[in-house]
Amino acid sequence: MYGKCGRFTVEKPMVLGHEASGTVVKLGTGVKHLNIGDRVAIEPGVPCRKCKLCKTGRYNLCKDVFFCATPPDDGNLCRFYTHAADFCYKLPDNMTLDEGALIEPLAVGIYSSRRANIGLGDKLLICGADIDNNRLSMAKSLGADYTIKVTTSDPKELANQIEDVMGCQPDATIECSGTDFSMRTGIYATYPGGSVILVGRGSADAEVPLTLTFCFLFSYPAAIEFIKNGFVNVKPLISHHFALKDTVQAFETARSRDSKAVKVMIHCDQ
Amino acid sequence: MYGKCGRFTVEKPMVLGHEASGTVVKLGTGVKHLNIGDRVAIEPGVPCRKCKLCKTGRYNLCKDVFFCATPPDDGNLCRFYTHAADFCYKLPDNMTLDEGALIEPLAVGIYSSRRANIGLGDKLLICGADIDNNRLSMAKSLGADYTIKVTTSDPKELANQIEDVMGCQPDATIECSGTDFSMRTGIYATYPGGSVILVGRGSADAEVPLTLTFCFLFSYPAAIEFIKNGFVNVKPLISHHFALKDTVQAFETARSRDSKAVKVMIHCDQ
Amino acid sequence: MYGKCGRFTVEKPMVLGHEASGTVVKLGTGVKHLNIGDRVAIEPGVPCRKCKLCKTGRYNLCKDVFFCATPPDDGNLCRFYTHAADFCYKLPDNMTLDEGALIEPLAVGIYSSRRANIGLGDKLLICGADIDNNRLSMAKSLGADYTIKVTTSDPKELANQIEDVMGCQPDATIECSGTDFSMRTGIYATYPGGSVILVGRGSADAEVPLTLTFCFLFSYPAAIEFIKNGFVNVKPLISHHFALKDTVQAFETARSRDSKAVKVMIHCDQ
Amino acid sequence: MYGKCGRFTVEKPMVLGHEASGTVVKLGTGVKHLNIGDRVAIEPGVPCRKCKLCKTGRYNLCKDVFFCATPPDDGNLCRFYTHAADFCYKLPDNMTLDEGALIEPLAVGIYSSRRANIGLGDKLLICGADIDNNRLSMAKSLGADYTIKVTTSDPKELANQIEDVMGCQPDATIECSGTDFSMRTGIYATYPGGSVILVGRGSADAEVPLTLTFCFLFSYPAAIEFIKNGFVNVKPLISHHFALKDTVQAFETARSRDSKAVKVMIHCDQ
Repeated sequence: MYGKCGRFTVEKPMVLGHEASGTVVKLGTGVKHLNIGDRVAIEPGVPCRKCKLCKTGRYNLCKDVFFCATPPDDGNLCRFYTHAADFCYKLPDNMTLDEGALIEPLAVGIYSSRRANIGLGDKLLICGADIDNNRLSMAKSLGADYTIKVTTSDPKELANQIEDVMGCQPDATIECSGTDFSMRTGIYATYPGGSVILVGRGSADAEVPLTLTFCFLFSYPAAIEFIKNGFVNVKPLISHHFALKDTVQAFETARSRDSKAVKVMIHCDQ
Repeated sequence: MYGKCGRFTVEKPMVLGHEASGTVVKLGTGVKHLNIGDRVAIEPGVPCRKCKLCKTGRYNLCKDVFFCATPPDDGNLCRFYTHAADFCYKLPDNMTLDEGALIEPLAVGIYSSRRANIGLGDKLLICGADIDNNRLSMAKSLGADYTIKVTTSDPKELANQIEDVMGCQPDATIECSGTDFSMRTGIYATYPGGSVILVGRGSADAEVPLTLTFCFLFSYPAAIEFIKNGFVNVKPLISHHFALKDTVQAFETARSRDSKAVKVMIHCDQ
Repeated sequence: MYGKCGRFTVEKPMVLGHEASGTVVKLGTGVKHLNIGDRVAIEPGVPCRKCKLCKTGRYNLCKDVFFCATPPDDGNLCRFYTHAADFCYKLPDNMTLDEGALIEPLAVGIYSSRRANIGLGDKLLICGADIDNNRLSMAKSLGADYTIKVTTSDPKELANQIEDVMGCQPDATIECSGTDFSMRTGIYATYPGGSVILVGRGSADAEVPLTLTFCFLFSYPAAIEFIKNGFVNVKPLISHHFALKDTVQAFETARSRDSKAVKVMIHCDQ
Repeated sequence: MYGKCGRFTVEKPMVLGHEASGTVVKLGTGVKHLNIGDRVAIEPGVPCRKCKLCKTGRYNLCKDVFFCATPPDDGNLCRFYTHAADFCYKLPDNMTLDEGALIEPLAVGIYSSRRANIGLGDKLLICGADIDNNRLSMAKSLGADYTIKVTTSDPKELANQIEDVMGCQPDATIECSGTDFSMRTGIYATYPGGSVILVGRGSADAEVPLTLTFCFLFSYPAAIEFIKNGFVNVKPLISHHFALKDTVQAFETARSRDSKAVKVMIHCDQ
């Protein structure tokens, strides 16, 4: 039986470790921003630098990335380790190597909040320590305004509790537990138009409650102009015409596959 | 048994109709952009204009919207109908009332492409006519570069066919069929970092294949600075320390709930 | 002589006042979120709610806005004043009316930071109290990490001082002094790709140092495809051809207006 | 006397040429997407790939870029030339080398439209061929809906002409002439909230007409909450209090530097 992490399967022995800091013992040619003896935090993924994703600011999606401890790439839980210099970040003098190793999870949090487009004054829901008193009190002591211990199995009920406690719906949710329950809660809880960012995932498939919204926003002027200018021709879509009194027949035609109906017009002045 | 549309349930008789055009027969006080006799396309949703969503450019998400033919609001499939004047758009002289009635679905398409952030040169996949020869050939005649008739029930296989036909992965997908199969196909087919826009939905719950990505992008400098400046204190998160030779014990500690482990350090120089 | 504020000129006596709070003494029909006796902060601009700008989330740009104390609209420096209820925000019990009157300038600051797209960890430069010791020390006591008293009249020198003090270039600058000197400083100081937000302006015209950047980013694939597919035809732009040995003549042709040159080709293999 | 291009000065003889195509005669190790004999378009700037700008999708702003024919870097107007392989884009079989050389200016156009955030249905103004009949008729034949030959020296008048001809204000303007006149015209002509993209620049300094807008958009709730929660303390800003009847004195105090006034309160109930 093999271990898995997302789409990656462990197929042979592998060195673990991707949250690491270390001390520089040797430098490649041309490295200028580091010196031997510097203590560094190691960003574990080194992308190809050449593909469209790397060039357009999404190197974290690069398909040719080297990523520590992600099969088939070995990690850095070892005494000596080589890494691309520009993915080694020098630690300030007042920071310990222990803190340096925690840069990785902190960076995940920072990136998540950027992805969620959190701005000044926005309210944020973080899911993930919800069933552990110890972690909840640590979250509180580290700055959370409120914490909720999950006692219900109904995500809508939990979403309501969250709104009650926060006094409003959160503008965004960062989901770190990896459970479907928590993801559903985040979707129900978040303010319309907000984001639910999934950081942890237990399984690749998830059952998501999709919410319907009305699908346009000041799009009529452009639609009218496209037809006016001939850029779009909608006439071929109109397959049938009916008078208002024949509305039932119109609906029957629309839902019948045999009718080859596309758009069925009902004329209310007839 | 009642009909449903998304979260809305039909509980009493209701006038249908939300894709409509008409001729102005009467004007409210203060209406200046319309005259009696003008032919107009009717945008079917009139929002409250006062809530946060209305004020910040997302009136389509307004919770107090009046929307034609969405319970409990009657639609406009009738001879005479009253609507907010600024949601009635005058038709140009060269456009028929039939075309005017098709402004609504065209506006959905325009808004979807804006939501998908389609720019010059982007490739777009539209799912929705995939199993009907008649509609596929109409799509082709109206401007689609390629069409694919779906013959497989495996969304990954279909995604591969799409990439073969298009010569690349689409930058965005607009899913109009409302089926889970088609949504899954869109997610597998779309280029990393792209959008899948859901226009039609058959059911509220959907089983979605979530893809894992590596979760940071140039976030180390900010993470380092937060710790350096004391804005973030990660030290309380470190609950245990182990030497490299005791790595197995470290992992056991990390996965044990009894240990109250949060972050477990392994020191590779020990 | 008349006073001016931007494009607005005072042409007759006008009530001043646009940073105000007050107590509700009377309510219009249908107002539900306020009660008589509530203390409120007044957002001074009430837009038309019907134009494209209002509907797309930019009501602050509405051309038909009523704005307190902006000609010809009177302000609210008076005993009794009527205002649209949804632009009156109830103050919490622990907030004074004095604080309520300062909501307006604070909201300017919040909106500016949103416009500047300030995210977690971004560095911000605020220009505006730069020559007043009293205000600088107040800025420091209210949370500024660093303050600089301006002693040079060279914006590039000041930009260098700012980078020295901050340890990096700011990701964005909010310019509140209204002077050209300060705007120039902001442009020189800000990190490439960042924003300079102008909050205060003394004059409508400003002399701005524009910086040249190289003008494409992963745009070659789309360009190649447009020509390949016939979407763009560049051939008509090629007006002349020269061999490499005739390069000087090619350049002369390109700069001569008489030649009607558009694009001049030099063939290096000839 | 030396030539200049933006901030770059030519200080010694230099090979020109940055809009080029060519045929591959030799390949570096590891290059897989090209073969000897392939015809390619050359993207002229090769960035450092390691700095924050390169990693966050703005490699065009990289300070360590190599850029053809930009001092001190030589260009590619020569028989043989070496370039980073991933900045060489293979031309399709149906495209000539002449067309390949025009990929560069076309890419500038594509990138400009992306920067201007042009979406489906947006109206675009392009300034740049405005005084040359030959170029104007070429623009028309290549797809421009309208062209205007500039005959006025008043940018506001020209902006009005543009609105008349287009039937509305453009959503964005791409300015390619490099003149201040044209930039001013673009600013006056563009719809509020739109973008003016400067592609060509004659001089680094430009006199820009800045337009004042009202500076907040649904920012009151956050402002109120910041004070309520103690996140922001505005009380120290209030330096003076006056009764309504002493308003003149209040204004005198506010504008006097000696008073050390910051925020001056006028109490309308006193």
